[in-house]
Amino acid sequence: MKQSKLFVKSRKEVQSEETSINAQLLLKAGFVDKLMAGVYTYLPLGLRVLDKIKNIVREEMNKAGGQEILMPALTPKEIWVQTNRWENFDALFKLESNNHEYALGATHEEVVTPLLQKFTFSYKDLPQAVYQIQTKFRNEARSKSGLLRGREFSMKDMYSFHTDEEDLNRYYAEMEKVYEKVWERLGIGHITVKTYASGGAFSKYSHEYQTFAPVGEDLVYYCPKCKVAINKEIIEDLEHACPECHGKDLEEKTSIEVGNIFKLMTKFSGACNFNYTAADGSVKPVIMGCYGIGPSRLMGTLAEIYNDANGLIWPKAVAPFQIHLLSLGDRDESVQNEIMSAAQKLYEQLTAAGWEVLWDDRVQASNGEKFKDSDLFGIPLRLVLGKQSLQAQSVEVKLRNQENGESLPISEDLEKKLKEIYNNYAV
Amino acid sequence: MKQSKLFVKSRKEVQSEETSINAQLLLKAGFVDKLMAGVYTYLPLGLRVLDKIKNIVREEMNKAGGQEILMPALTPKEIWVQTNRWENFDALFKLESNNHEYALGATHEEVVTPLLQKFTFSYKDLPQAVYQIQTKFRNEARSKSGLLRGREFSMKDMYSFHTDEEDLNRYYAEMEKVYEKVWERLGIGHITVKTYASGGAFSKYSHEYQTFAPVGEDLVYYCPKCKVAINKEIIEDLEHACPECHGKDLEEKTSIEVGNIFKLMTKFSGACNFNYTAADGSVKPVIMGCYGIGPSRLMGTLAEIYNDANGLIWPKAVAPFQIHLLSLGDRDESVQNEIMSAAQKLYEQLTAAGWEVLWDDRVQASNGEKFKDSDLFGIPLRLVLGKQSLQAQSVEVKLRNQENGESLPISEDLEKKLKEIYNNYAV
Repeated sequence: MKQSKLFVKSRKEVQSEETSINAQLLLKAGFVDKLMAGVYTYLPLGLRVLDKIKNIVREEMNKAGGQEILMPALTPKEIWVQTNRWENFDALFKLESNNHEYALGATHEEVVTPLLQKFTFSYKDLPQAVYQIQTKFRNEARSKSGLLRGREFSMKDMYSFHTDEEDLNRYYAEMEKVYEKVWERLGIGHITVKTYASGGAFSKYSHEYQTFAPVGEDLVYYCPKCKVAINKEIIEDLEHACPECHGKDLEEKTSIEVGNIFKLMTKFSGACNFNYTAADGSVKPVIMGCYGIGPSRLMGTLAEIYNDANGLIWPKAVAPFQIHLLSLGDRDESVQNEIMSAAQKLYEQLTAAGWEVLWDDRVQASNGEKFKDSDLFGIPLRLVLGKQSLQAQSVEVKLRNQENGESLPISEDLEKKLKEIYNNYAV
Repeated sequence: MKQSKLFVKSRKEVQSEETSINAQLLLKAGFVDKLMAGVYTYLPLGLRVLDKIKNIVREEMNKAGGQEILMPALTPKEIWVQTNRWENFDALFKLESNNHEYALGATHEEVVTPLLQKFTFSYKDLPQAVYQIQTKFRNEARSKSGLLRGREFSMKDMYSFHTDEEDLNRYYAEMEKVYEKVWERLGIGHITVKTYASGGAFSKYSHEYQTFAPVGEDLVYYCPKCKVAINKEIIEDLEHACPECHGKDLEEKTSIEVGNIFKLMTKFSGACNFNYTAADGSVKPVIMGCYGIGPSRLMGTLAEIYNDANGLIWPKAVAPFQIHLLSLGDRDESVQNEIMSAAQKLYEQLTAAGWEVLWDDRVQASNGEKFKDSDLFGIPLRLVLGKQSLQAQSVEVKLRNQENGESLPISEDLEKKLKEIYNNYAV
C-alpha cells in the first residue's frame, strides 16, 4: 500500500482526556479514531491489526472443532427475562421501539442456547462447539482505557454443549491449550497466565487469562511455582494460597483480562429447559461451557505493552504490514526521481514476493516526518532509500525494536537477507 | 468439512409466517435461523455464503481504491441532530442510557463526514474513498421478506470525497463499472440494471441497481434499448419516458434493490461545515458521493432467484462449498466400510487439491435424506459413492442444475474431469 493514498495522517496531539498509553499511541498513529467514550472507528492500518488478531483466533477455534456462526446484536427482551438477566445483567444497553423491547447483545448465551436446542435431541447430537466473532455492546460506567474497555467492542465468544460434566471437563482442558496457543501466537504467551476467578453459583472457579501490564485494571496474585494466578476477588476465600500447590509465596501484579473460560454447567440449559435423551433413554440437561476472547481489547493490550518513547512496536503476527519502505526526499530533483523509481521497483519486487509492504511514497512529507511516522506505526522492518544508499546501490535496513540497522546491497540476495533479519525480530 | 460434525440439520417445516422463498429455503436448509422478524443468525453454511459475497464486494472496492475502515454501530444523538436526521431519518433505532441518547447506525454519513474532516485540509488531500462492511440497524415496519428486508443486516457503504463535481462525476462513472463487475461475479449481471431513482434535494437522480425477480418489492420500468430502468417513484415526473433515449417502450418489472449510488454533493459536508483550501487559496465545500451494497440482501436475492422445487442452486462464486460428496449407506457392513474408506480417501484427495468439499459422512442418515439435503443445500457439484460405483471403481458426478450426471472412474484423471464439469456449471 502506498502511504500517499491513505486518507489518515498521524497526529501530534490527541484529546487530553485520553490518558491510557494504548489510546494515545493508536490515536496518534491514526490506527483508530474516537467517536465517543469507549466507541472507536478502526482506520485502515488499525483494521488490518484487528483483522489479523481475529484471524489468529478464528484459526485456532476452527482447529478445536469450533463451528463459526454469526448471531445478531439486536435481541428481544423475552430471552433475557427467561434467564433472569434482563434486570440483573450489568451494563446491558436496552431500547424500545414500536412497543417492542430489545437488548443489544452483551453476551450471547440467551441466543445460542435456544439455537442449539432446535437441533439437539439425543446424545448422538453432542458434543458441539459453536463460536462467533462479533460486535458486543456494554454500557460500562467508566470507559477511559482506550480499547481496553469499550462500550462497543469485538468479541470471540464460543459455547460448548455436552452430555455430562466429564465431557465438558475434557473440552475445557482442550480449550486451555488452545487459549495458550493463541497468546503464544500473539506474542504475549510469556506474560499471560491462567487465573482462578469466581465461578458463580454453578461452578467453583472460572478461569481468566490475565496479561501482566502496569496499566491493568485487574489485580492478581501470581504463583511462580505453578505459573497460575488468583484474581483478587477470591484471594481471601482461598486464604491467600495457590489453589494448585497451596503455597503462599504469591506475587501481586496488575494485569489485563484478555480472555476467560467458564463452566456454565446447567445455568442456561436449565433456564431454557434444554434437555437431551441419553443412551439409556433418560432425559438429562445439556451441560455448557463458554469461552471468550476480546480481539479489540487484545489490540489495546498489545499497544499498551509493545511500545517505546517513539511509538508502537507490533508483534510480527499482527503488525499491519511487515515492511515499512521509506523513500527519502532530496533537494536535487533528478536524485529525488531516481530514489522514487528505485523505491517503486523495490516495492513491486517485495510485494510480488509476498511481503506486506507499506511504502511511504509521500513527496510532501519531510524526511524527519517519515522517520517519525515509521517509529510511531511500529512496523517490524524498516527499509530506507535515500541519496547515500542509492549511490551505494543499497538500502538501509532496521528492525523497529533495535537501535542500529545495516546497509544491504540491492541484489538478488536481498530478499533472503531480509527474511533472516525479519525472522530475528523478537516480538 | 464433514457433515456429521455440523450441529445444524435441515428442517422439513419452517415457521408458517415465513412466506418468502428465500426465507423458506434458507431456513429449511439450515443456512440461517430466525431470532425475530428481520433478525437472523447466520449458521455455518450460510455464514460461508455471506462471507464469500462480502469478500467479492471487498475485492472490487479495494481495486477501486477504496480504503477499508470499520465504524461503530453506536452513534451519539448530536451528530444526527447536526444533519437534521434525528427526527427525520426513517426507521432509526434510538436508545437512551445514563442520560445519553444514541442511534444505532442505519447509515454512516454522520460518522464518516466528520472523520474525513479531521484529516482533510487542502485539495492535495482529495479525492478519497473509504468504505466499511458492517452491520446496520433499521426498524423497518414490515420485515417479512427473509433476508431481503432485515432490521439488522449487513451493508457495504462507501463514501467518496472530491474537490468538485467533475471529479465526483468521474468517480461515480468508475463506480458504475465496479458495481457491474460485482453483479457479474455474483451471477446476476444479466438481470441487474442501473435504475434511475429520485435524487433528493441535491441531485437530479440517484441510481439504484435493481435485480429482476418476481418477489421484488420494487416496481421498475425497463428500457430494453438502453438497458436501464426507471423506478416507479419518478416515472410520472419523466412522463413515462426513458431518460437516456426518451423512448416510451418500457417494460414493467418487479425487482429487488441490491445496491445504490448517490451524489450527495454538499448535503453532509455543508451540515458539518467540511471545507478544503483549493489550489487558488479559496475555501470550498467538499463534494461527496455514497455507494451502498447489501451483502445479506444479496444472499436473499440469490436464494430467491436460484432455486428449484428441490432447493437452492448457488452460483459458483458464493456456494458454501464447491463439491458435496455423499457416501451412501449399505446394509452390508463390510460394503458400508469400504464405501466410507473410499469416500475418506476421495475427500482427503480433493481437499488437498484445493477443492472446497462438504462430505456427507453421516451414518445415521438414510440415502434418501442425503440426496434431499444435497438438493436443498444447492452445492454446484455432487459426487456420490455407493455400492455400485464402488464396484465399478467410479463415482457418480452431477451438477446441481442438471438432470443427469455421469459416472467417472476414480483415476488420476478424475480431478481434471471434475474441473471441466465444474467449469460448465452455468450459474
